[in-house]
Parts: sequence; structure tokens; C-alpha cells
Amino acid sequence: MSVTAPLGFRAAGVDAGIKRGDDRDLALVVNDGPSRAAAGVFTRNRVKAAPVLWSAQVVSGGQVRAVVLNSGGANACTGPLGFQDTHATAEKVAAVLGDSAAEVAVCSTGLIGERLPMDALITGVDVVAAQLSRDGGLAAADAIRTTDTVSKISFRRGAGGYMVGGMAKGAGMLAPALATMLCVLTTDAEIGSEDLDRVLRAATAVTFDRLDSDGCMSTNDTVLLLASGASGVRPDLADFEKVVTAVCADLARQLLVDAEGASKAIAIEVVGAESETDAVTVGRAVSRSNLLKCAIHGEDPNWGRVVSAVGTTDAAFDPDRLNVAINGIWICRGGAAGDDRSKVDLRPRDVTITIDLSAGPHSATVHTTDLTAAYVHENSAYSS
Amino acid sequence: MSVTAPLGFRAAGVDAGIKRGDDRDLALVVNDGPSRAAAGVFTRNRVKAAPVLWSAQVVSGGQVRAVVLNSGGANACTGPLGFQDTHATAEKVAAVLGDSAAEVAVCSTGLIGERLPMDALITGVDVVAAQLSRDGGLAAADAIRTTDTVSKISFRRGAGGYMVGGMAKGAGMLAPALATMLCVLTTDAEIGSEDLDRVLRAATAVTFDRLDSDGCMSTNDTVLLLASGASGVRPDLADFEKVVTAVCADLARQLLVDAEGASKAIAIEVVGAESETDAVTVGRAVSRSNLLKCAIHGEDPNWGRVVSAVGTTDAAFDPDRLNVAINGIWICRGGAAGDDRSKVDLRPRDVTITIDLSAGPHSATVHTTDLTAAYVHENSAYSS
Repeated sequence: MSVTAPLGFRAAGVDAGIKRGDDRDLALVVNDGPSRAAAGVFTRNRVKAAPVLWSAQVVSGGQVRAVVLNSGGANACTGPLGFQDTHATAEKVAAVLGDSAAEVAVCSTGLIGERLPMDALITGVDVVAAQLSRDGGLAAADAIRTTDTVSKISFRRGAGGYMVGGMAKGAGMLAPALATMLCVLTTDAEIGSEDLDRVLRAATAVTFDRLDSDGCMSTNDTVLLLASGASGVRPDLADFEKVVTAVCADLARQLLVDAEGASKAIAIEVVGAESETDAVTVGRAVSRSNLLKCAIHGEDPNWGRVVSAVGTTDAAFDPDRLNVAINGIWICRGGAAGDDRSKVDLRPRDVTITIDLSAGPHSATVHTTDLTAAYVHENSAYSS
Repeated sequence: MSVTAPLGFRAAGVDAGIKRGDDRDLALVVNDGPSRAAAGVFTRNRVKAAPVLWSAQVVSGGQVRAVVLNSGGANACTGPLGFQDTHATAEKVAAVLGDSAAEVAVCSTGLIGERLPMDALITGVDVVAAQLSRDGGLAAADAIRTTDTVSKISFRRGAGGYMVGGMAKGAGMLAPALATMLCVLTTDAEIGSEDLDRVLRAATAVTFDRLDSDGCMSTNDTVLLLASGASGVRPDLADFEKVVTAVCADLARQLLVDAEGASKAIAIEVVGAESETDAVTVGRAVSRSNLLKCAIHGEDPNWGRVVSAVGTTDAAFDPDRLNVAINGIWICRGGAAGDDRSKVDLRPRDVTITIDLSAGPHSATVHTTDLTAAYVHENSAYSS
């Protein structure tokens, strides 16, 4: 299912020999129409990988026929030759499909700073194209994994019967992000590229954008949304946004649970903020505190580390009116010790930290993970 | 030596029973004059501990007779009662010295959110005051340790024969900072509080402020500079700034080497920046990349993680003109792979990452450490 759950899409994933070993490393997703409307959001890192520069240009045309994705190399920081490699990959896909390279998006993930093995990749395009099918969604999702232990896929049906499907990879998040997040969303709804763009921005802003596993931002993060129109259903826009957001939220959740070396999934819920921006700022600052992430790993309800992190922001709040709950126990009230910290049960994998800024009616939730020796191990040993 | 290296100062450090165990936990530093000129810089965290609020007020008067410091409790997030505790501590010291509490600074370090054991502390003030001596600098430096494995002390002689001495504790840094950094600097130079303030700000800006072990910022960070004038030497201001900066740099270096769980000391040297601010911004962004810190721990010269972190800043640079060297090998040139990465020797404890932004003549160095399983362990197991 995944990207092939909606009508009008075929996909495949193969081992093209880009990565060492026998894992799949090349995926292709093709939109057979009748529409090719598309939108995309990309990393905000100023150092953008060649496929990001290329795909942003493709998407700006509002039409995407196909997306080719490889693991085993990010093609980032590879200079003009790296950009030529991306271009050549798009040209090859276009040739195989009898279409224009200007409508072929490219995504890459893996080590930064190394050229891709282009012979393997170009040969692989023929192989993967030959395997394109309506059942290929799972193989495609498998082929884009790097340190992901499982494939991430999702789909939802919208009002009137259209479908939205998607696949994602990454142990990080969209932006800020690293370990590269790639996501391809598909739908058979009939909808134009401008509406797709608006909906995709709204959906990612409250899902992938609020995932902050380690505060790092990748050079390659990409989320694409392709519409085939094959269902013939013209969706209600509010319903469509809700469905796309649900698919993104589901994929984001899967990314978080599979984050490198994590043993806890931490939701940082900021309430009582003067603005949503303040709420996100505070949530992000708290999610980036290594000290707090270690404390949660150690199942220590160390609210002092929460309050310290809040204090580094410019959000509106009065230190004497801060309240903090961990898993529902308000252990900090009015900026000082509140309820008995021994009542906090931090054994479950899911942890919720609620921060009440007592400054207004707005709220937002940012998701992160704990910091573990396994994270250090994985990121010390694996060049990515 | 340490704070008692300059003439006019006495100090002591005792076990007052604030911390569990037999370690010293209460220090007193007294300026016997003839001058009491003083200056201070404090955490920029908006959540400030009671002793920071108190001492900032004391220092604003430009005179400090004594500094009382405790480990075993930060007295942060303790509300109005915590502030009363700080006030009572200063009053007690003032009473023992026959002086005014308005000239007694207070510093605390330890767990946030818990009240101090005031009976032990007040009784301890009598004990520590009774032990004040010209030899007490080392005991004072010992008493302010928390997770510090060693005491940090330094002293330098300036032109004309005046002395500058100091002690510090902390596994973090001034601002941004955590694990609380406390530092008391003393001098027997004859110099007014306005000059002290200017020199202290200049010295800390290029030393403690450029230490970023984990990007966290404490509620308690404090650096004080006290001048007794007892040498009778009126220093040349440029020389004085040089000597104070050297003492701060020496203490900063000791803090970094002793940072929690670190196995590498990483200097991030940013050159070719359009402004010094840009250089510091880039250095700080790189120093906060958990992914990079893990790579250095694993002795992997992963320059992609450096470039990714640079790309998250708003500093002036062109991604195609970035150069990065690790321990002298320019493994990234023009934003792409440069010299052979196998030439980089990452076995020594000291690691230098040089980033050339190719955007101007300015430079700055930010110091950090690697991210290790030991850091995670220490900060999971130790409530601080």
C-alpha cells in the first residue's frame, strides 16, 4: 500500500548495489495521472544537497510525473558534479518513462560528501522501472531506509472516497532535522498544485516540523505530495487537509518511535502561551536540552532542567508563574516545587511533559526522544 | 593560592553538612581591602536562582566585602522563601564579619527546586568564618565542587607586581551554560568597579562565553571579580585585561577538560567570517551538533555534520566556498570533499575543527567536548 494505496500510482524498490550488502536502495514512484499536480517542502538548511536543489526546481513547476529515491548516499556537498549526477538520474528516469526530466523529482539519503556510484544507479533505474506495479509501495518504502529499523507507511481514506498514502524514512525530522527525512505522499484526489502546496505546508508545520529528535537539520529533507486525480473525487479542502495531516502525523509518530537509540518518546506539550509561536519556541528549547533528555532516560522527573530550558527562550512568561507536569503530576507550581516528585511514574515508553506558561490561550506540542548511550553508540560508529 | 594569591584576601572551605557525605560544601572569600571594588556577570537565563538575583543587586553597588558559596543545592526555583534563605545567609555572614549584608554576595550550586538546609548552612557560616586564612584558597575551591572531579584554580602576576587569582567550578559554562558555572576572581590591583566591570565583561566574552559543553544554560552561573587594592599597584588597563583574560582562559580550559563524561576537547575555530558575531554563531551551532559530537567521539572525521550545522545559521557564507579542516587536514574544500579523510588523526584528546567561511577577515573559537555514553550515564543517574 503506502504510496500505491491511491489510484494512479505505481512504485517499486530494488537493490541496485548503491549500498553495501543486499538491501534495497533504489525506489521509484510514478504518477500515471490523469493529473500530475504536485507540491513539496524542503530542508531549511542553507547547505542543500543536489537532489534538493533539483527537486525544488521541479516542484516549482507544479507537476511531478515521478520520484526516484536512493539510500546509500546523500549526494550532498558534492559540488557541480554531484548536481550533474542528480540531473543525469532524472534524465534516465525520464527516458525510461518517455517523459520530461523537468517533471522527475530526485531524493537521496546517506553519507554526505561522497559522489553516488552512478553506474549502479543508472543501471538500477532500468531494473526498478521494470518492476513498477500497483503493489510496489512496500518495496519502495523499504528501499529508502538507512538506519531505520522498519519501513514507515501510512494511508487514510477521505470523505467521498479518495485516498491519501505515504512512505517516509528518517530517524530525524523535517526541519530542523538530520539523519535526513524523506517522505512521499500520494493522493488520487482531484486537486491543483496551489491547493496541494497550501495543504502540505499546513500539514507538515504541525507534524514533521514539530519532531525534534536531536536538533540537527539535514541537508536533504524533502516531503513531496503528488496528486493523480484518478479517483475523480474533488475533495473538500478542509477534509483533505485533515486527512493529509493525519497521514503526516502517523508517519511522524513512526519516525519518532524508531529514532536512533531512543528508549522514550517524549511529548512536550506547551499550554498557556501568549502565541502559538511562543509555544513552539518553548517546546523546541526543551526538546533540545541534552540534560533533560538524559534525565528522562534515567527516569528522573528533573523539572529543574525543564524550567532552565524555558528560561533560555524569549517567550512571554513570568518565572514565578511557570507550572510543569510530568506524566500528569504537577511537580512544579508557580516556578517552585509542587506535588511530590515520587508520584511521577516514568517507566512507560511514552512521556508527556506539560508546561503551563500562564501567559495566554495558545498551545503546541513538540515531540522528541531521550538521549541514550545507544544514540551515542549509533552516531559514533555509523558515518552518516 | 587561587583566590588568596592576591594580597588582601582570606578564604576557607568546610564541610557544613549541606551535601551528603564528608565533602566540603561551604566556602567563604573575604576582601580585607583597603578597597572593596567589585564587578559581576551572571547567567542570561530568565529563570534566575535566588542567589543570582541577590548578588546582582549587591554587585550593582560596586562593592563586595565577602562571597559565600555553597554546593549541595542551587536554591533555584524555590520562590520567595528561597530568596529569604539567600538573604539570611548574607545577613549571617555580615553579622560574623561585623559588616553590611548589602556587600555580601551569595553563590549556590546543586539541584534545582529544593530549599537549602538552612540550619546547617547558618551554623556552617560560623565554622567557615573561623577558618578564614591567607592559605584558604584551595579549601574554598574544593568546597564549591559538584560533579567536578578536581578543583579549578589559577593565578597570574601582572606588570608592576599585582596579582590576579581565581577559582571556578562547573562542568558547563557561563552562558549558555549548565551544571552551573561559578567563578570568583580576585586581585590586589588598585582599580575601580567601573573598570572592573568593563574588563570582566571583555574577559568573559572571549573565554567562559565561548565554552559550550552541552548548550544548556544554568539558572545560577556567576562570575565575580573583587579588587582589594592591597598591592598598591594601579595597573595599566590593557595589561590588567590581558591578565584577567588569561586567568579566565586558564579556568575555562580546566572546566572543559573536566566536563562531564567527555573524552575529547574540541576547539571549533571559525575563520574568514564577515564579523566576529558570525564566527561565534557558527562556532556555537557546530558545538551544539550532537551528531558531530558523537562522530568526534567515534574518531570519525565526519565533515558533513560540520557543514550541516553551519548551514543552520544566518552567518554570511556561500555553501560552495566553505572549507573545513579537522586536525589540520582540509577534508572539505569548496563545499565538497577535499583532502583524503584517512589522513585525519583523531586519536589525541585535543581536536581542532577549522571552518573557513570565505566571507571576511573575522574569526572566533568556541570550545566544546564530545558526546559520550559516560555523559549520558552521568546525567541520567545524577539529579542536578
